[in-house]
Amino acid sequence: MIRFDFSGISQALIGGHGIDPADLEALSPAIDAAHTEILERRARGEILFYDLPDQQAALDEVTTLAAHLERRFSTIVHLGIGGSSLGPRTLFTALKPPLHNLHSRPRIFFIDNVDPEELHDLFSFINPAETLFIVASKSGGTPETAAQLMLVLDLLRRTVGERLAEHLVFITDPAKGALRQLARELGVPALSIPPQIGGRFSVLTPVGLLPACLLGIDIHRLMHGARRMRPCLLEADPFKNPAYLFGAIHFLAMARGVNVCVLMPYAAALKDLADWFGQLWAESLGKKLSRTGKVVHTGQTPVKALGATDQHSQVQLYMEGPFDKIIHFITVGRMREDLTIPSLENTGESMSYLAGKSISELLMSEAHGTRAALSANGRMTTHIALESLDEETMGALLLFFEAATAFTGTLLGIDPFDQPGVELGKQLTFGRMGREGYEHMVRTSASDERLVIEI
Amino acid sequence: MIRFDFSGISQALIGGHGIDPADLEALSPAIDAAHTEILERRARGEILFYDLPDQQAALDEVTTLAAHLERRFSTIVHLGIGGSSLGPRTLFTALKPPLHNLHSRPRIFFIDNVDPEELHDLFSFINPAETLFIVASKSGGTPETAAQLMLVLDLLRRTVGERLAEHLVFITDPAKGALRQLARELGVPALSIPPQIGGRFSVLTPVGLLPACLLGIDIHRLMHGARRMRPCLLEADPFKNPAYLFGAIHFLAMARGVNVCVLMPYAAALKDLADWFGQLWAESLGKKLSRTGKVVHTGQTPVKALGATDQHSQVQLYMEGPFDKIIHFITVGRMREDLTIPSLENTGESMSYLAGKSISELLMSEAHGTRAALSANGRMTTHIALESLDEETMGALLLFFEAATAFTGTLLGIDPFDQPGVELGKQLTFGRMGREGYEHMVRTSASDERLVIEI
Repeated sequence: MIRFDFSGISQALIGGHGIDPADLEALSPAIDAAHTEILERRARGEILFYDLPDQQAALDEVTTLAAHLERRFSTIVHLGIGGSSLGPRTLFTALKPPLHNLHSRPRIFFIDNVDPEELHDLFSFINPAETLFIVASKSGGTPETAAQLMLVLDLLRRTVGERLAEHLVFITDPAKGALRQLARELGVPALSIPPQIGGRFSVLTPVGLLPACLLGIDIHRLMHGARRMRPCLLEADPFKNPAYLFGAIHFLAMARGVNVCVLMPYAAALKDLADWFGQLWAESLGKKLSRTGKVVHTGQTPVKALGATDQHSQVQLYMEGPFDKIIHFITVGRMREDLTIPSLENTGESMSYLAGKSISELLMSEAHGTRAALSANGRMTTHIALESLDEETMGALLLFFEAATAFTGTLLGIDPFDQPGVELGKQLTFGRMGREGYEHMVRTSASDERLVIEI
Repeated sequence: MIRFDFSGISQALIGGHGIDPADLEALSPAIDAAHTEILERRARGEILFYDLPDQQAALDEVTTLAAHLERRFSTIVHLGIGGSSLGPRTLFTALKPPLHNLHSRPRIFFIDNVDPEELHDLFSFINPAETLFIVASKSGGTPETAAQLMLVLDLLRRTVGERLAEHLVFITDPAKGALRQLARELGVPALSIPPQIGGRFSVLTPVGLLPACLLGIDIHRLMHGARRMRPCLLEADPFKNPAYLFGAIHFLAMARGVNVCVLMPYAAALKDLADWFGQLWAESLGKKLSRTGKVVHTGQTPVKALGATDQHSQVQLYMEGPFDKIIHFITVGRMREDLTIPSLENTGESMSYLAGKSISELLMSEAHGTRAALSANGRMTTHIALESLDEETMGALLLFFEAATAFTGTLLGIDPFDQPGVELGKQLTFGRMGREGYEHMVRTSASDERLVIEI
């Protein structure tokens, strides 16, 4: 189903900027300790994501609600930000055609920002009477989602009036928060995100599952794929566990200053996977304090790239720039569609070699050619090869990246499940917006006039 | 029109991880030398991008051709990769509404990859009889664009037959390359990219201008904005020249290990600008050799972020992770549309403070709150404030980033205009595709079986 080839990080292949396999062996005690910590936290109920594929009740709740809703709406608008948006969007991009919104129904729009131009254009375009609004917020109090929801409630009151609740579904905490309370007051159906699951680990909860199901994605196969992947993600031996090997490699790479991690799928359908992984990796590992309270300022910057496109944008830097990156190639062996490049007159030698080849062959050749060239330049790469891209491989891949991230954070000695660093920014925003209790939280960035230029 | 505030990098504001203004002063001789080098290379005709806004003949050629073509096509398909795609796409996203393709004509699709699923979906969806294909390739021999073109020529032959040439425009080198030759043979109109202009500096040539013009973007105002910006981009004094100050700051930051550069616009319309800048910055600065032949492995990884969305994805890392980044905020003072958040019953204190505020006010508050929090955490930021977002500010902004990139590369002692590092990957791809003369260029990535895990 999936082949993880980590050979491209080895000194044996790429020379001095690679990792010495002996260093991987030497890491054994730390890997064992991290494995034990994960098992213990899982046993204490602090880590739940491994178990989501078994939550049959949640799956049934989603399919029942989806069956009740489907065919009633030509348009779905999904409100949410961060993990609430990245998970479902990743499934949509991976499993529906790129022009889905132009030729199929229901259309889906992910509104994950508070951009007035974007909101204005959407609200002018959609017909509220034919639209279902899904509102996903773990806490229920996310300011961006709250603002979007207030606009939507007003829009629905003005258009569908008393039938408002029929056009809404909330996905939030099972008991707490403004969204849960509002659901009760308005009679809006509300699905639950288990309290132990943070937004960035929520793709296999109703957050990802409900939109997917409404779009006709087979969520049972998605969960099946995750279940198939799981046993090897819980192996103690890193040479049998791709998540642990991924984590161990990143731990060693980070220790030698590799602070950039590039995910480069050679499939347009996986481009949002790189964004989803970007949140998972950045928020989970970007931490000031270790779990013992030591100041560590750890983390690695995730970068999204897309093959072959970014060969013409980023690869010059990857080939010749600093040795500060590890680059993960993802390829798909059997594409769902393919095209043969026709043979034509008029084309000279610089084009004729392409005739008779398929587009997928060209794309795969570019992946292999680029990776081989990076290796020749001493750059660390890995290769995750999917046999095909479908619900099952997506479920497996998502669970793999979650496990890899949780393990890497544990190995680094930080808590991969919190995000304490965003609090101050939120409070300063509340201060500017005049929220009660935050009036003192206003800070104006001082300007040094010598460093200001106006045109 | 634009306010560049670089105060946020100063030690006076953010402490020890900032830059000492005295170091900026001390850089004067190097800045003078780089300025002289740029003036000399410009005088020798090696640097042309500053002068593109004056090329009236090219502008006239574009407007004449656009006038001839417009209203004849409901769909434009733009084929090209790298700079050939990023420039026009950036203009489209910045200056047309986000749902343009759903509610307006002509629709435009940018095909910048060789993804079989993407190409299949597009070719099934469009009506070739109503479609104009723009093919942009500097060299005319880019394999991805060549493959796309071969498919399109075949499609047109099968559908519009002899009228094929009427559905095509090429944009390429004025004299050389396969595309120029094909244009002659097929009678396809072909616009020119000046030979001195590399793909990543080509947005103000017909590459960017023709698609923009066909979409109803005012390219005269675009050029006017670039011309208005230009004088200050040629000032010798970095405290009067935002491109030079930007370059000097990055030079100093890179010297102290800051290898990540984040562009974070708080406007969805500018999200592709960050991609365009990403190519410019990565390909221009990511170099192994200095101009004197010294091995330097220089470069800085560009990262695209979008406010407020990525506050819920990347900002945790920016706040608490390593001190390895400089983060550029871009805000728009006056949005083209705005919405007022309505006052509603049922919403508790966690939402009610938003009532009566505008969405643009919330977005701007988030930008200021996040930036102030980053400063409080000792992180380097800058703020580029646009009064509004229109053709004029876009022209100015594009020329600013080009000048800033050229200057930074010159200060680093490398050639910002070449890209020698991608050649090997291309040759290895040709080898795999069986192109004549490249049969020996096949390299298979070796695998260390211990580092391979299959599921």
